[in-house]
Amino acid sequence: MSKGLDTKETILRTACELSSKFGFEALSIGKLATKVGLSKSGLFGHFNSKEQLQIDVLNYTAENFTAKVLRPAVKKPRGLARVDAIIANWLEWSKYEKGGCPLLAAAIEFDDRPGEIRKVVRALYEQQINFYKRAFQIAVECGELPKDTDINQIVYEFYSLLVGQHIYTRLLKDQSVEERLLLAYEQLKAKFSNP
Amino acid sequence: MSKGLDTKETILRTACELSSKFGFEALSIGKLATKVGLSKSGLFGHFNSKEQLQIDVLNYTAENFTAKVLRPAVKKPRGLARVDAIIANWLEWSKYEKGGCPLLAAAIEFDDRPGEIRKVVRALYEQQINFYKRAFQIAVECGELPKDTDINQIVYEFYSLLVGQHIYTRLLKDQSVEERLLLAYEQLKAKFSNP
Repeated sequence: MSKGLDTKETILRTACELSSKFGFEALSIGKLATKVGLSKSGLFGHFNSKEQLQIDVLNYTAENFTAKVLRPAVKKPRGLARVDAIIANWLEWSKYEKGGCPLLAAAIEFDDRPGEIRKVVRALYEQQINFYKRAFQIAVECGELPKDTDINQIVYEFYSLLVGQHIYTRLLKDQSVEERLLLAYEQLKAKFSNP
Repeated sequence: MSKGLDTKETILRTACELSSKFGFEALSIGKLATKVGLSKSGLFGHFNSKEQLQIDVLNYTAENFTAKVLRPAVKKPRGLARVDAIIANWLEWSKYEKGGCPLLAAAIEFDDRPGEIRKVVRALYEQQINFYKRAFQIAVECGELPKDTDINQIVYEFYSLLVGQHIYTRLLKDQSVEERLLLAYEQLKAKFSNP
């Protein structure tokens, strides 16, 4: 039982690395089986289908992202300190993740392809955006942002800065963008604090 | 000769649709050949390798993007009117493109995978970013932005708003983000005009 869980964890971690490197649709069951030292049928003993494997990889990635970027922020005092922590954790995450963010890759890859996987990606993205909304809402409740703050607007601008930083860092290898993100984020808070 | 060019155009357009829908790595030569009504070997008569096909698709997409989003902006008067036009054209483009932006998909897919394709994606992205830099630089020269404007900073924030809008629209199907982008863009110009 415990060995079965370990194997599943190994498969998911490896599948995650492969699909963040080569894309989700290109995830090859044969290649994955070889990498984890299983036969194809042995691998299918853990997942019923390639689609189920892809969905499990997405959930695994999201859980990892939540554990490293979002959840630690909740330990900070209520208010903008939590959003500050999300930014700091995001910067760590975007350095650490091999092959880029698999969730972002899936978002772009599946954004217009109807089906179960798209539903999962969209739900995970909505969870992420809702987490940011809640964090800013708490800052409003704490009096750190005005009562009439447009939460959807601030979250759209906040999230855009994150995803922009990701592309600059990973594709353009522009390391100075970390400082640019931090400056823009300080100004974003100031803009909404004194509208 | 002309028929050959037409065929190549058809192959590229179809390959572009397929890879923006299923990802670049998942682009299947067999599927593409069937869709354009050629044999696999007939298709390889137009491209030497899958890699060459992928690179041609990227250049084709970038040319299309330049023709629809960037080049028309240059017809506007020198200054921020050109950046305004880029935003308007981008919004049209992000509605029109089937299956999302293939260039963005490639950027995410190949961001950490060394090789010829990554070099092409990176060069195309740098061209895009440089176009935005030049546009803002002209606005500085026209006196519409202060002389000491940090061009890299404004372009990072500008590009982030574009890519954020793309994900909100295509994945989250949040149409209200068009207005959010326009509001944030107006405030971005104001912030840099009165730093």
